[in-house]
Amino acid sequence: MGSQEEKPITGSKGGDDVVNGDVFQGWMADGAGKPLRYTGFRVKEWEETDVDIAVECCGVCASDLHVLRSGWGETIYPCCVGHEIIGTAVRVGSHARPGIQIGDRVGIGPQGYTCRQADCEWCSSRQENYCPRRVGTYGDRYPNEKGISYGGFADHCRHNSYSVFSIPEALDSASAAVMLCAGSTVYEPLKEWGAGPETKVGVIGVGGLGHLGVLFAKAMGCPRVVAFSRKSDKTADAMKLGADEYVATSEQEDWSEKYASSLDLIICTVSDPRMPFKEYLGLLRPKGRFCQVGIPEEPLPALDAMSLVLNGTSISFSDSASPGNIREMLELAASKGIKAWTQVKPMKEVNEALKEMEEGKARFRIVLENESGGKPSSEGR
Amino acid sequence: MGSQEEKPITGSKGGDDVVNGDVFQGWMADGAGKPLRYTGFRVKEWEETDVDIAVECCGVCASDLHVLRSGWGETIYPCCVGHEIIGTAVRVGSHARPGIQIGDRVGIGPQGYTCRQADCEWCSSRQENYCPRRVGTYGDRYPNEKGISYGGFADHCRHNSYSVFSIPEALDSASAAVMLCAGSTVYEPLKEWGAGPETKVGVIGVGGLGHLGVLFAKAMGCPRVVAFSRKSDKTADAMKLGADEYVATSEQEDWSEKYASSLDLIICTVSDPRMPFKEYLGLLRPKGRFCQVGIPEEPLPALDAMSLVLNGTSISFSDSASPGNIREMLELAASKGIKAWTQVKPMKEVNEALKEMEEGKARFRIVLENESGGKPSSEGR
Repeated sequence: MGSQEEKPITGSKGGDDVVNGDVFQGWMADGAGKPLRYTGFRVKEWEETDVDIAVECCGVCASDLHVLRSGWGETIYPCCVGHEIIGTAVRVGSHARPGIQIGDRVGIGPQGYTCRQADCEWCSSRQENYCPRRVGTYGDRYPNEKGISYGGFADHCRHNSYSVFSIPEALDSASAAVMLCAGSTVYEPLKEWGAGPETKVGVIGVGGLGHLGVLFAKAMGCPRVVAFSRKSDKTADAMKLGADEYVATSEQEDWSEKYASSLDLIICTVSDPRMPFKEYLGLLRPKGRFCQVGIPEEPLPALDAMSLVLNGTSISFSDSASPGNIREMLELAASKGIKAWTQVKPMKEVNEALKEMEEGKARFRIVLENESGGKPSSEGR
Repeated sequence: MGSQEEKPITGSKGGDDVVNGDVFQGWMADGAGKPLRYTGFRVKEWEETDVDIAVECCGVCASDLHVLRSGWGETIYPCCVGHEIIGTAVRVGSHARPGIQIGDRVGIGPQGYTCRQADCEWCSSRQENYCPRRVGTYGDRYPNEKGISYGGFADHCRHNSYSVFSIPEALDSASAAVMLCAGSTVYEPLKEWGAGPETKVGVIGVGGLGHLGVLFAKAMGCPRVVAFSRKSDKTADAMKLGADEYVATSEQEDWSEKYASSLDLIICTVSDPRMPFKEYLGLLRPKGRFCQVGIPEEPLPALDAMSLVLNGTSISFSDSASPGNIREMLELAASKGIKAWTQVKPMKEVNEALKEMEEGKARFRIVLENESGGKPSSEGR
């Protein structure tokens, strides 16, 4: 970072030091496999539609691991990951989304910017998550050479206000953080494909995404939710989450026969390409739908067309959620008292947290918290 | 067939010779790769819900080739294929579907029987094509040991009346035959996934199914239908069918870039597992849907989850069509004057026809016609 000015900013209510402060402090990766180090970085050029957020906490998502190791293509280093961000709005542009005030608790998920142009049918139809000009919360380039996007493993972050959410009071910050990516990624397909009182749902993988899949499917009234994971060690937790049944696929020999043709909608959060894809697909009833939300770095196992034709199966993929659905999800969580299961750790333990995440030890989501708590009076670390 | 009684029946208006006639004559395969030979075979035991049909003509479908060579699993030999059947009802059971009379022109597609039981949610909801007890028109076993099903490369066939369709007068028999499988297989996904005035459609493979895909997509008001085939030799035909554009994928180098992200709905009729699946999927706009109706004998190429997630893609499979949709399709074809492109040949040239089909020479569907013309007065061959 030697070539960048390393002047830390202090959070403020929009004073001069913030207006001129385009250098934030955060946990940066210089390359694949390198431990993150705390340093300054130059954020995107300020625009009056932007919001600067003093980060209170940020969830650790599997995507962070994929990107840190350039698993989904070459990452732009140095990189600051983290896209389940809750914090305090410390600077709000004059053309920001109405409703965001300095001092508000706000959040941002994996999308840092969508174009909102009249010529964009995706933004126009409130499916902004498919805007072709969208910019990811980190490791992505803003249009017009405004700079690179950086995530929430930092003291502050800067993003487009129309991608920034107001957070309902009833939600605790760690829980809300996790919902902004993990939650929205499972909520969107449940909503899109009509999960409700008639829907028998399977959730494959009981982790950051999967545990929220179980919670939301039950909250949406699904009468039967079956959770699938490799080992039996998550049985009690899955039942506590509200699952009606739990299947340990590496320990129960006959699971693929026993549960064959029993589910209408499956949310698969697993991103291991060696998963038993064919057996999972066989769990669907006729005209059922399999939603793959985990993204393996290698191709998915090949499909056997005949069994899928005979069953009239659909396989769907989806990218996070539209802002409208995210707001709806947050309201649902607030009104029904849904809480993500989080393990809150100090942000400075980020490297240990990534290791635990990699080893699958999180129950179910690690959330990193800044000592400052994202308060505007923070002087950084 | 030596062990079976080889007493040919003569078609009649339900006289004793038909009532007792459970031996029909047709073109039988004794094993994979064997030429078909004309011989007698014992049909399923008569039930009062059945109809005997004197076959007028029968289309030749790629499925026939797959089954004849046991490409989709071990076929029950001897086997009489053919499931695009038009003929005359020569015997109608006392509990047959109301509306079928002796002497009527009727047809049957790939489904020979569905259970219609109250406990079957698929039959109850008029999605009989997913009835778990369904019996294929050939090479399948009827419940309660009533016998094996045999297809339409024969003088007569016997099937459950509720799978037998009345044919609108406006449709010629060869065209109607082809619609009962090829037509319904492309019509169902066009209907199910909302093809209409807003839908940009791709049809991959311009053959028996694909040419009807183009015809029906245009009839349903789709403003842009792009036909894809390997070589340019079908360009003029595709345009005559109504395609707005034609792409020869093995001759145009830049097709996958040129047409990237341009289509809402793709019907893929190709059953070659070496197809450029990833490139085809890249033709879809965000939230687009790829419907695979061709059934390769080998697995489909592996999927790259990331590009599908970013695009919010769905991949769907479907099995033929519900009887309701088939009736609707026949009415649409009759009212809009849609005709399949057929090449009618004598049934006795069945082995040559199968060879032409295998070599991709059909333009676009070969239909085999009995000399009798399916008239009840036929004495067989």
